[in-house]
Amino acid sequence: MCEGVESVVPKLREMNPPDKITRSASVHWTGDIAHGGGKIAVESGLVSATYSFGTRFAKEPGTNPEELLGATHAACYTMAFTLGLTRAGHPPKTIDTVAHVDLSKDGDGFTITQIALVATVDIPGIEDGQLHEIANGAKEQCPISKALAAVPITLDVKRA
Amino acid sequence: MCEGVESVVPKLREMNPPDKITRSASVHWTGDIAHGGGKIAVESGLVSATYSFGTRFAKEPGTNPEELLGATHAACYTMAFTLGLTRAGHPPKTIDTVAHVDLSKDGDGFTITQIALVATVDIPGIEDGQLHEIANGAKEQCPISKALAAVPITLDVKRA
Repeated sequence: MCEGVESVVPKLREMNPPDKITRSASVHWTGDIAHGGGKIAVESGLVSATYSFGTRFAKEPGTNPEELLGATHAACYTMAFTLGLTRAGHPPKTIDTVAHVDLSKDGDGFTITQIALVATVDIPGIEDGQLHEIANGAKEQCPISKALAAVPITLDVKRA
Repeated sequence: MCEGVESVVPKLREMNPPDKITRSASVHWTGDIAHGGGKIAVESGLVSATYSFGTRFAKEPGTNPEELLGATHAACYTMAFTLGLTRAGHPPKTIDTVAHVDLSKDGDGFTITQIALVATVDIPGIEDGQLHEIANGAKEQCPISKALAAVPITLDVKRA
């Protein structure tokens, strides 16, 4: 289970990513801020969840933008990390990434003050130096990290 | 159906948002970049979806970080917009927000080059000037917009 880049390149070429991809999502909201709520949907149909002021700022059941941002970032980071590892000839057996997103009071409003990525990896044969170089490169290069340049992002990489 | 801020404040006070909230999400990935894939989960349990290189850059069925970012931003923006409208005494009947997220080739990698928000609103009694002022203020102030300061964000507001 250590196939390197040579078996991967043909499949990636065949997929041939276009120069630009547009993806969409939507929210249907009804009512005021205290009593109302919204329903979130995505183009693929794979997310459908409700949220409100109470599910975001209190403990009512539902989703919130911060856990969705965590999902977005963890997904992008993990793919970029896998790409770097595969290119280096060390494809991962498994990567488990958790993203913790902090939302903090800031004057009258709130600000995302930190995203902490924690990746637990099972990658046979790779040395620590190379592992951390690729892990950090993925943190810098993944498109979602770049979009979130305004937010301090930390990364902790551990062996499973 | 035009209750203003006075009936809302007690409920918001009662919810009493803490100074800091941490939300989490995770990804479990197996395999190389071309043949592997990941499963995305969030703390609330309301999102559980698979993705891969092929669901992101080609047309295989699954989710992708960009539609999740759109969901995140549309959700945050719509709540901030509703907060502004409620404070101004014009709570919305409905707001339908779509976020279109562009991912574009950029040298060796990809970059999020634009997020286009389109909000279609049913808000009785509000004049155009105030509507657009509150809509634009929400675009500037929502925590996810601030986190995405590196990305050009456009906003189009229309009456239903």
